[in-house]
Amino acid sequence: MKPMNVTQKLISLHLIEGEMKPGSEIGLKIDQALLQDATGTLVQLELEAMGLDRAKTEVAVQYVDHNLLQTDFKNADDHLFLHSAAQKFGLWFSRPGNGVSHPLHMERFGIPGKTLVGSDSHSCAAGSLGMLAIGTGGLDVAAAIAGQPYYVKMPQVMGVKLTGNLPDWVSAKDVILEMLHRHGVKGGVGKIIEYYGDGLDHLSAMDRHVIANMGAELGATTTVFPSDQETKRFLKSQEREADWQEIKADAGATYDLEDEIVLDDLVPLIALPTSPGNVVPVREVEGKPISQVVIGSSANPGLRDFWMAGAIVKGKAVHEEVSFDVNPTSRQIIQNMIDNKTFGNLITAGARFHQSGCMGCIGMGQAPASNTISLRTMPRNFPDRSGTKDDQVHLCSPETAAASALTGKITDPRDLEKLYDMEYPKYEAPDVEIINRDMLVAPPKNTTAIELKKGPNIKSLPEMEGLKSEYEVPVLLKMGDNISTDEIMKAGAEVLPFRSNIPKISEYSYIVIDDTFYKRALEAKETYGGHVVIAGENYAQGSSREHAAIAPKYLGQVAVIAKDYARIAWQNLVNFGILPLEFENGEDLKRIEQGAIVSFKNLKTDVAERNPITVQVKNKDEKFKITVRHSLSERQINLLMKGGIINDFKDKLAS
Amino acid sequence: MKPMNVTQKLISLHLIEGEMKPGSEIGLKIDQALLQDATGTLVQLELEAMGLDRAKTEVAVQYVDHNLLQTDFKNADDHLFLHSAAQKFGLWFSRPGNGVSHPLHMERFGIPGKTLVGSDSHSCAAGSLGMLAIGTGGLDVAAAIAGQPYYVKMPQVMGVKLTGNLPDWVSAKDVILEMLHRHGVKGGVGKIIEYYGDGLDHLSAMDRHVIANMGAELGATTTVFPSDQETKRFLKSQEREADWQEIKADAGATYDLEDEIVLDDLVPLIALPTSPGNVVPVREVEGKPISQVVIGSSANPGLRDFWMAGAIVKGKAVHEEVSFDVNPTSRQIIQNMIDNKTFGNLITAGARFHQSGCMGCIGMGQAPASNTISLRTMPRNFPDRSGTKDDQVHLCSPETAAASALTGKITDPRDLEKLYDMEYPKYEAPDVEIINRDMLVAPPKNTTAIELKKGPNIKSLPEMEGLKSEYEVPVLLKMGDNISTDEIMKAGAEVLPFRSNIPKISEYSYIVIDDTFYKRALEAKETYGGHVVIAGENYAQGSSREHAAIAPKYLGQVAVIAKDYARIAWQNLVNFGILPLEFENGEDLKRIEQGAIVSFKNLKTDVAERNPITVQVKNKDEKFKITVRHSLSERQINLLMKGGIINDFKDKLAS
Repeated sequence: MKPMNVTQKLISLHLIEGEMKPGSEIGLKIDQALLQDATGTLVQLELEAMGLDRAKTEVAVQYVDHNLLQTDFKNADDHLFLHSAAQKFGLWFSRPGNGVSHPLHMERFGIPGKTLVGSDSHSCAAGSLGMLAIGTGGLDVAAAIAGQPYYVKMPQVMGVKLTGNLPDWVSAKDVILEMLHRHGVKGGVGKIIEYYGDGLDHLSAMDRHVIANMGAELGATTTVFPSDQETKRFLKSQEREADWQEIKADAGATYDLEDEIVLDDLVPLIALPTSPGNVVPVREVEGKPISQVVIGSSANPGLRDFWMAGAIVKGKAVHEEVSFDVNPTSRQIIQNMIDNKTFGNLITAGARFHQSGCMGCIGMGQAPASNTISLRTMPRNFPDRSGTKDDQVHLCSPETAAASALTGKITDPRDLEKLYDMEYPKYEAPDVEIINRDMLVAPPKNTTAIELKKGPNIKSLPEMEGLKSEYEVPVLLKMGDNISTDEIMKAGAEVLPFRSNIPKISEYSYIVIDDTFYKRALEAKETYGGHVVIAGENYAQGSSREHAAIAPKYLGQVAVIAKDYARIAWQNLVNFGILPLEFENGEDLKRIEQGAIVSFKNLKTDVAERNPITVQVKNKDEKFKITVRHSLSERQINLLMKGGIINDFKDKLAS
Repeated sequence: MKPMNVTQKLISLHLIEGEMKPGSEIGLKIDQALLQDATGTLVQLELEAMGLDRAKTEVAVQYVDHNLLQTDFKNADDHLFLHSAAQKFGLWFSRPGNGVSHPLHMERFGIPGKTLVGSDSHSCAAGSLGMLAIGTGGLDVAAAIAGQPYYVKMPQVMGVKLTGNLPDWVSAKDVILEMLHRHGVKGGVGKIIEYYGDGLDHLSAMDRHVIANMGAELGATTTVFPSDQETKRFLKSQEREADWQEIKADAGATYDLEDEIVLDDLVPLIALPTSPGNVVPVREVEGKPISQVVIGSSANPGLRDFWMAGAIVKGKAVHEEVSFDVNPTSRQIIQNMIDNKTFGNLITAGARFHQSGCMGCIGMGQAPASNTISLRTMPRNFPDRSGTKDDQVHLCSPETAAASALTGKITDPRDLEKLYDMEYPKYEAPDVEIINRDMLVAPPKNTTAIELKKGPNIKSLPEMEGLKSEYEVPVLLKMGDNISTDEIMKAGAEVLPFRSNIPKISEYSYIVIDDTFYKRALEAKETYGGHVVIAGENYAQGSSREHAAIAPKYLGQVAVIAKDYARIAWQNLVNFGILPLEFENGEDLKRIEQGAIVSFKNLKTDVAERNPITVQVKNKDEKFKITVRHSLSERQINLLMKGGIINDFKDKLAS
């Protein structure tokens, strides 16, 4: 048998459909699922709509780490709903304030050799333990929880050989920043990054988490590490040594692509605004005044990272002009930080300690002052993500962040030796951490009597209608090229709170383009039983937001006719039962008026048999015919007939 | 000499004007000033407008404890501004996250025998140390910082004799809840509450803080405690024994009013929604399910209070359905909580620890789930204050809160003995606490070179014009009786962020009554050089909001003509240079049309000489004359001539 790398081993062990040929679709058995609260409310509503009895994955966990600032009833209501839904569908529930999903999952549930999907883009962090862990859309996670395979195009595997050892004051964050420096934020697209080499001997499992987590910033499908003695040491420290198994690449295993990093050569790096890919050495920007330092997030969640910051500021006070914010990863890590004096060191030096969770990393507070520099150990610094429009967020290691908190300006941590006569603090990991399992609520044995707790803003998913053969419906909107999901369903503080209320959020459909759409769609649903929209190239590009499909579907959208589609949105349309059609002749877009009435006959047959589909178009003053097509797989055609994945799953349950 | 109670001693030592006769105005020398951030930005802008060189009080401190959730640039910008202003005007600056103003002030700055004014209604908490401490409007505090006396009507003194000792499971919070039960939320209006008696021997200085703080809920001018051995013990624990002096009522001292509480008779009490005055025994409402418990705030800020909660939940986990939120009072208290194991006890039991500050007490997060019960150790439970419209906030002691967190329902803490076989935990206060002064920035010796740091939302106060003799201006608004400051300048999340931006906030003037007002006021200012408004009885009742005077002044408001005024608003109008006139014949209100042009001649002379003032009114179709008057003191007449207190102070500075 051909020698395999770790990625190939993980995939081959879970391969249900397809073959491991880069670019071809594969179906994978999923062992574990991870939900966070911002996406989880919709996933739970999808599970409800599917009529799921009990999660089919080995482990599924609903975390609450995003929406922790409760400025009105909605987030608190969501927490109660998620708790009840976790109980009803047989998921673990990590209570609000228990901590950040990815490191918590790694500590309590991650197992080498398992697969995981998560409704959070940083779910790839679990690759640090020798898992195949992929962040994906909510409905994919719901399907996995319901026992369905996860479908993905087989990525290329990029092998990155790590050799040597990191110099003092340089840490795992600098490794992933080096990768971003080399490959940029699109360098990982369509790839799995697999690390190997003797450099791994000096990177703890939590160091690897730092690197795997921010693989998301490379655009990678995921990141994979072997499971070795460091993995074993970590699981032992979590009292889970029994879950360990060794997983290493076979001798002679090869990679589709190759890279190598000599760890000894690395220096402290920093990502400048406003992309994690804008990486330069700290030396290049040192001396700039800063107003804020934030420690924490899934990108630097380990006890070591906080300990290091604490060791650097110990016995000193942070600079007078700096807000030194610390987001502890979890309740467990707070207990360990108290135990190893880190908490006291940080507080005494002036830290603002916040509750455990993502906090400022997803814009939940901690917005910096106007046009001032904020140094963060977080994974992302996209424009306005912090909440401040002209923010100047820089991403760096805990060493660089803590050093700069002391001096009040961007500081290369290597300078601490001369500035403060400081030796590089050497971290000694405890053999066994203090473990706290109390805020993880286990799924009950019997879930039948459990009722979902829905506050006034939480509504069940509406019923989704399957495809019919005949339609005579208006063209409600005529759009150009490159329409984004932000235009179809805008983001932001006004709209996001309605993520668990489809009837309400549907009021915002296409509002950026045409604020009469909602009203006209309701009228068309009443009069014609639905509507279509037409568009140019690359329809629904951008964010993977599922609401850009669910909300139009709720308003009666039967089909989109476009020149072509963005990949994820095209899948989302099908998943929620909207037919994505393509013009045979792109010029036809010009001929169709907004307000035209389009008629379909024998649509189900034509779709099923992949016939060219004839559409009768009735403009205000003329009638004509056009031809459209689709490029759906058999599986997708089946979904459409049924009105989407949720209905399909219901049918499977019934049979 | 007649024997004096503590209140009379404190007042007589600071009396600059007037005599200590209940109801007559007195002017007091002010030793200390306290600012928090939500009101402090405006106070600092007032100090800037006054041209203040350096604070004249012995101690003035700018705290940052309210606006700690930074969801956009504004709060972070305010923090930088307040820091720079504290430096420029010679105030101490307590950095964001350092903690809640009132307990911090008591620990670091409070001195028996001193007077204090604070721009926060709970400033009365410092009465716990034998101070005369009064919460008041921002401009009063600015004036005090600038060295002016503080004017207040001499209140009645209510002596409350405390005897005996509190039973197990009953604590200081139950004492003030008993007072609220007896006297209601208006029971303290026009009064200073002075506690005395042997019951004080068992109430620590921080217990007294609990009682003094919530004196605000009785509507009292302030609360006063003697300075005794407990006060000394407290100051010693803060390494400030040298600041102690004994202050006790003279033998034979009397009070205008009397009450007595036998501490042994008290039981655990709770205030039901939606008023701190709705007090019943916990027994009456026990068993109701709860969704949240919040520990902290200036109403229960002491180390004992957190220790007690920690001792109760130690080794247990809080109920699965309860969010157990803890708001540590200060950075110092966190250090002490780590030291005495309280922090670990609370975290292990499941606490969500937040940053030090007021947090949910002023609606900065922690909004409870819809229509569920939240138990809080905070001082207030007014409707919607929590952020959730149908909230069910109950106020109680840390003992009741912690007991209920364990059981998941309202629980009398005395039941812990049988429920958990628990003995009442006996608190032993440390002789000396761990002290943290690092996050208190001292005022610099030399402030001349310091520049104010103003983000884009922070604007200097506009110039205020003094009274002129002739006006011919339109009546821009005709209003009825009982117009509130909420109608003149609305509160809420949309408007409050502009508190430090008068030009911007002025756009909201009277918007609740007439949304064309702003536009019309600008036009009138351009065309006529100003405007007046007319109203019925009790104009500008409600909140003491200064913006209800500043913003109309900025828009050119020369005078209000009303039947009569709410007391604070009447003062605010004068303070900011708007002439509050009264109809001689109230029926004239009916005759004047909105849009009429009113003319004044010899106004300055008439105002100065207290003559009846003749106003020529030109309605659309008729002309007539009316007579109006004012009831201002000499001091107030002088202020008006100059355009308000700020200009008056500038003149004093110049001379």
